This record gives sequence, C-alpha cells and structure tokens, in this order.
Amino acid sequence: MKSPFSERCRKLKKQLEASELDALLVTKRSNWYYLTGFTGDAGALVVSRKGITLITDGRFTVQAKAETAGIRVLLQRKGLYEDTGEVLKRQAVKRIGFDPQQLSVAQWNTVRKASRGAGAWVASSGLVETLRMRKESAELTAMRKAALLAGQVLEGVLKLLKPGVRETEIGAEIEYQMRKQGAAGVSFESIVASGPRSALPHAHPTAKRVRKNELVVLDLGAILHHYCSDITRTIYVGRTPPRIRNWYQAVKEAQQAAIAAIRPGVMCGDVDAAARQVLAGYGLDQYFVHSTGHGLGLEVHEEPRLARGQKRKLEAGNVITIEPGVYVAGVGGIRIEDDVLVTATSSEVLTRVTRDLIEL
Amino acid sequence: MKSPFSERCRKLKKQLEASELDALLVTKRSNWYYLTGFTGDAGALVVSRKGITLITDGRFTVQAKAETAGIRVLLQRKGLYEDTGEVLKRQAVKRIGFDPQQLSVAQWNTVRKASRGAGAWVASSGLVETLRMRKESAELTAMRKAALLAGQVLEGVLKLLKPGVRETEIGAEIEYQMRKQGAAGVSFESIVASGPRSALPHAHPTAKRVRKNELVVLDLGAILHHYCSDITRTIYVGRTPPRIRNWYQAVKEAQQAAIAAIRPGVMCGDVDAAARQVLAGYGLDQYFVHSTGHGLGLEVHEEPRLARGQKRKLEAGNVITIEPGVYVAGVGGIRIEDDVLVTATSSEVLTRVTRDLIEL
Repeated sequence: MKSPFSERCRKLKKQLEASELDALLVTKRSNWYYLTGFTGDAGALVVSRKGITLITDGRFTVQAKAETAGIRVLLQRKGLYEDTGEVLKRQAVKRIGFDPQQLSVAQWNTVRKASRGAGAWVASSGLVETLRMRKESAELTAMRKAALLAGQVLEGVLKLLKPGVRETEIGAEIEYQMRKQGAAGVSFESIVASGPRSALPHAHPTAKRVRKNELVVLDLGAILHHYCSDITRTIYVGRTPPRIRNWYQAVKEAQQAAIAAIRPGVMCGDVDAAARQVLAGYGLDQYFVHSTGHGLGLEVHEEPRLARGQKRKLEAGNVITIEPGVYVAGVGGIRIEDDVLVTATSSEVLTRVTRDLIEL
Repeated sequence: MKSPFSERCRKLKKQLEASELDALLVTKRSNWYYLTGFTGDAGALVVSRKGITLITDGRFTVQAKAETAGIRVLLQRKGLYEDTGEVLKRQAVKRIGFDPQQLSVAQWNTVRKASRGAGAWVASSGLVETLRMRKESAELTAMRKAALLAGQVLEGVLKLLKPGVRETEIGAEIEYQMRKQGAAGVSFESIVASGPRSALPHAHPTAKRVRKNELVVLDLGAILHHYCSDITRTIYVGRTPPRIRNWYQAVKEAQQAAIAAIRPGVMCGDVDAAARQVLAGYGLDQYFVHSTGHGLGLEVHEEPRLARGQKRKLEAGNVITIEPGVYVAGVGGIRIEDDVLVTATSSEVLTRVTRDLIEL
C-alpha cells in the first residue's frame, strides 16, 4: 500500500518542476506533517530533486525516524537553520523556494549565510497549502469524526448553560469534554460570549456570569487525528424577543443560502455574496463584519478563504466553514457555523447540530 | 498612582537613546502587553521619541482603547505592516530597531516598503526582554499565585494517578482543574509521561495507561493574571527499587545545590554547573540532557537561560526555574522543577510541593 506521504511528496515535486524550483524549504509544522508524517514541534524540511531531508534536534530524532519513511532524518549539530543551509549547499541547488510568511528575518539570515554558494531564494508561498486543499478520503474520515465530536461537546455543554454560570466554566468544560471524548485538544481557544459580549466576534471566556435574557455564542472545535473542526451555535437564555428572533432567522437563512451556493467551480466570493445578499434583504448586512468562511484541515484556518471578491474556485474535496453572523454593538451577536465538504456535485455538511434557535 | 506601563515605556525610551535608536518596532505579544497593557492577539507597537502608537485591526480597537492609556491606538486600514510602515514614515525616524526573530520575511518586506524614506533598520533583540527580567512587586504577586496554583493542581491530580488511568486523562484533568481554580489556562501543554516514556523530556500525554512499577513525570504550569508558572514532580507507582531511588536522590540533591547557588551576581552558567556537578558525583551527568532552567514571566520561557557556560549574571527580581533531570532511554526519567525568585541576598522558592519521592 502506498503511503499518503510519499504520494503527496511526488505531487509536490511535480509542482517544483512546474515552478522551476530545485528545492523547497518547508518551515511550517502542518506542512512538514502533511508531507512526511513527522509530528515534532521543531524542524525544517528540504524537498528537492535529490530527495527529502528533515533536520531536527535531539528531542525529536528518535520520533522522526519512527514516524517517517523514505526520507533522510538529520540530527542538527550547530543550529536548525545553519544545518539546513549546509544541506542546501551540499545539494548545490540553484533556485530555492521558501515561504516568507513562515520564516523569520533571523532564520532567513542564518540559512542564507550557511547556504552561501547555493542558489537564489524565491518567495513561493502556498505550494503545499494548495495540495492540502483537496482532502483525501482518509483525511475526510478524520474530519468527519472531528466535526461530530465538536457537535457532541457543544450539545453536552448546553446542559450547563444556565443563569449564574461563568463563561470561563463553560470554556473549561468544553476543553475537558473534548479531551475526555478523545480529542488531542481544541483546535482554537473556545469562544464563550454572553450578553453584549456576544457582539464581539472573537470574545474569549471571561469571569462574566451568564444572565437571563441574554444571547450566548459558543464557538469551538476539536483536533482529532491531526484534523480540526470548527462549529458555532448561538443560544438564547430565556424567551427570545421578536427582534432577536428576526436576526436569528436572517443569519440562518444567510447560512443556508451560502451552503446552497456551494459546488465545484463556484468562486469563493460568490458563496460569500450569497450570505451577504440574504442579510442585505433583512437590512442587516452592515452588521456582518467578517468573511463567510475559511478552509479547514490540519490547521483551523487554511485555504480557501470565502471572502468578498475571492476569485478562487471551489473544488471537490475542499472542506470549508460557513459562518455568517450579525453583531450589534452593545446588544449582542448571532453566528451559526458549520463545516462543509465540497462534493462532486454540491456539498455535505459535516457538523450535525440543529440550526434552529436553541432557547434555554 | 503611576501605571507600571508608562514607567516601563520610560525605561525603554532610555534604552533606545543608549542604543541610538529613534524607534523600536515591537511585534511580540508579551512585549506589547508589558509596555501597554493591550491583551489583543494582533497588532504592532511603535515606540519612538514622538510617542507610542499601537496599530491593530477592527476586532481589537475598542479593547485596545479600554486597556491602554497615554498611547495612540490606530485602526489598521490597508494591512498591519503596511500601516505600521506608514507610521514610521510619518515620524521620519532615522534608525529603527526591530527583533529579527519576531518578524517574518514577508512582514519585514511589507513594513520596509511602506516606510520607504524612513531610516535604517537595526536588528535589536532583547531590549524589552531585558527589562522584563527584573520583576516588579505586582508581577511577583501574580507569579507567587500562579506558582501556588500549579502546585495545588499537581497535588490534586495525584489522587487520579493509579494503574490503568490513561496519560491523556491526567492531562485533561490538569487543564480542567487549572481553569476551575481560576487560571486563564495552562502555560504550556502539560507533560504526562509514564514508564519508559518518562525518559523523553518533552513527552506529551498519549493514550498509554499508567502501570504498576512505573515512573510518572508530571510537568505543568498555570497562567494567572498573565504570568506563567512551571512545576515538575516525578512519582513512582509502587515501591521504588533501589536504583531508581538512587537516581531520584541524585536529582533532588542536584536541584538543591543549584538553588543554593542562586544569589545576585552569580553567573547563570555557575548555577547550571552546580546541578551538573552533583549528578557527576553520582556518575549520572551524561543522563542530564538539557539545561538547568530558564526565566519565567509573561512567557514560560524567557531570559535568563541557565545553561552551560552562560555568563549573564543573576539579578534580584529574576524568576527562574531550576529543573535538573536524569533520563535513561528505555527505562525512565526523573525531573524535579521549581520556580525560584532571586532575592537581594539569596533566593525564595515560589512553588510549594514536597520534593521527596512520592510513591503511590
């Protein structure tokens, strides 16, 4: 059986040829895991026509050899980027691709100095990220499980959501339940935002207590078998007043419209526009202050981005979030988010929690 | 009452003059928090003779204005580093300090381009970090509490540590108890390493079950009021065999010797040597594969480093970890770690958990 890693490296090498690169320096953890299976925290990967070399330190060499196959694992002697530069020099590569977003100025200075005599450095972002957009079937298996797990944890903590409970208590319970149910951890710090704080799209839990007649936004995700999920539901604690019921309905319809727009070949910006158009119909589009969604996989935010004007086209195998929202400063916010797989003809929603307004 | 933030900025400005810098670009979160109190995740801070400017995006501007005083908060329009470059250009600074370890090549390219016409870029690492080494009394209050909390959580999870329990269950309980007891979170992913895995200094929890007659290393820390703690204890599940009892005694004495060596004016390398010398006396120094400790504060690893040959001298107000260990591949490992404040004359241990061998 072919390993997914060697197949991914084969595809990347074809990309390198197409980009006229002799080597690619991979400095992002999720990218080197995707290409080799190495789960260590520190390292650098050189992919070239001469093979694949992972440079890492003494904490990780045993692990690296156990986790990978068909690549060379080098124990760093002088320093990670010094040794990486020497590998490039020995391979006498002429054009070296690197991701300027994933290399600090200090690292770049070191690796360039150590590779002196080797070739030109070419800014080449997104080569591995583009491969990662189209999920393989084993990746989808993990992502389905991660999506279901996040939904179960969300449903579980609803039992605790009562007037008087602190946001931080809900946050702690989310993380605990994730791990108890087998997640490696949360894919991002959970958002628990109650009352007026729900109008802040990125509000982390505080000591604030949930009160009666408040909105509560819960946004959470699990990491399972290396893959991330991301789900949001908005709850009303009490009987929902008509104005808020109307906002909720608008967000729900906006999400449905965006999901209905998903199929291979559609531009990401058009999916974003579908959500925005519904909110405009309700006169609420000015309260939707972020983009409609983002790719999901080994990282919780990856390509493609579903934002205004994005011309990139969806492909079968992409997994994206669809998460429109409405945020009214001083009053509250509503967001509904699901994880969606782009299928050959349309889409499949991976998260399975009711999208109807939950009143507690 | 003077705010600690304005006082720190005043000290930093004196440092800038001494380094002949007109401005410092601060791109690390812990540094901008230290200087301004801003707790947001995204931003850039320009400290110059003309004042202090924080550039951040729409998610954080309200928060930034509420959390800071005496500084200018700018909402980013084009992009974080583009707008930051324009601030530098408007201020017509001649020499701009920056930390090459805290700026990606892409960010540097953007900020340099946008600041074109402004001055030369000067690599200036560690200016804020040096100020942060000497803790103020309010910082020490937070650090004392964070240290006690970590110790309480460690003692609490000992009740769960029985043959059959999974490492991941202990890990989940540690994080849950931290948050339940008021921590903002863990200062790093907890280490729970049992049996032969305890010989890996950086082993994160796995599904492995703890068994009878095994060593278990627990290494954990809390973040409380922004400050980190870090504590390690090693437990034996069963009756400890004489060989392991001997290793434990060696590590305990090594730690005591290192702590006894601490006082202002002593070189960090000498504290490291004190621990190493004890282990050498036991013939175990080759099994001590890392350095003796590190500074602790807003980050879990900061200056000073207590490693071989480090010439930097300890000062009153430094907070450091002392954490010698012995790791025998295939058998197991032992580490004992405490957080220690350097006082005017000697030291004060902030973590309060017995250092005697715990048998369960």
